[in-house]
Amino acid sequence: MINKVDKIESAIQDVYPDEFAWCYGCGRLNKDGLQFRTGWAGEQTITVYTPRPEHTAIPGFVYGGLIASLIDCHGTGSAALALHEKNGNRIGDGTDAPKFVTASLKTEFLKPTPHGVPLRAVGTLEEIHPKKWKVDVEVFAEDVLCAKGEVVAVLMPKSFLSK
Amino acid sequence: MINKVDKIESAIQDVYPDEFAWCYGCGRLNKDGLQFRTGWAGEQTITVYTPRPEHTAIPGFVYGGLIASLIDCHGTGSAALALHEKNGNRIGDGTDAPKFVTASLKTEFLKPTPHGVPLRAVGTLEEIHPKKWKVDVEVFAEDVLCAKGEVVAVLMPKSFLSK
Repeated sequence: MINKVDKIESAIQDVYPDEFAWCYGCGRLNKDGLQFRTGWAGEQTITVYTPRPEHTAIPGFVYGGLIASLIDCHGTGSAALALHEKNGNRIGDGTDAPKFVTASLKTEFLKPTPHGVPLRAVGTLEEIHPKKWKVDVEVFAEDVLCAKGEVVAVLMPKSFLSK
Repeated sequence: MINKVDKIESAIQDVYPDEFAWCYGCGRLNKDGLQFRTGWAGEQTITVYTPRPEHTAIPGFVYGGLIASLIDCHGTGSAALALHEKNGNRIGDGTDAPKFVTASLKTEFLKPTPHGVPLRAVGTLEEIHPKKWKVDVEVFAEDVLCAKGEVVAVLMPKSFLSK
């Protein structure tokens, strides 16, 4: 269902620890990145992003890889929001957010996505394991559902950095 | 299976018609884009790409959305290579390549992908309909299989531009 939120007040990416804030998609410290920001919208989650001029598939339509990227970071951000809340924390209470990695990402392109308007990724969460969440994502351009995705996000293993 | 080709001599993107050469992932006319190039490697297809410094997930590892983008364009490019050849054409014979769009894209992240080395997307093609191809993609960083993907690519409908 479409969700008309168009500004994220409190984003989970605002409270990722600095060492995990370099993601090209959603890292607040990655100045050349896309800087997606993900917050709650009722019981769903939302990321709003307006593609850059160069993010075209063909002129007038958005590049599918950008949509997949939006779904990816929206999925891990949504999982982090959910676990942060489950842990009894809130954005801004001084605690760092947990960080998830993507195990799998599916994107189904339903319609050509018009370029030049904000895209809204809306997520519906399901905890499938204490360290694993499934996030169903719908991507809207204005009122039109253009893509659907599914992200399986896994809490980042402590071994990740040593691999 | 890993394929050691590291330079694409003849890429299908070189012969996309100008109006379809603006893809952020693989359009030769999109100067701010990634400019993926896809060619034959025996009976498989290959795209080689070295991520930019900013394409990080966390420092030292490649952003998953970039890997999904690589798989996406590698899939549509591979399908275009296959149909171009099936049509009796060759890159450089003066004919334009057909252009595919992505119906669905799946990416499975198997291992953290090291940043700073070329990535090789290797595709295996299956024609599932005269206008639809499935491309199984493996992404290697040096010798290590880091991600797998599946793209269903559909010949771009003539109605696409009028939607």
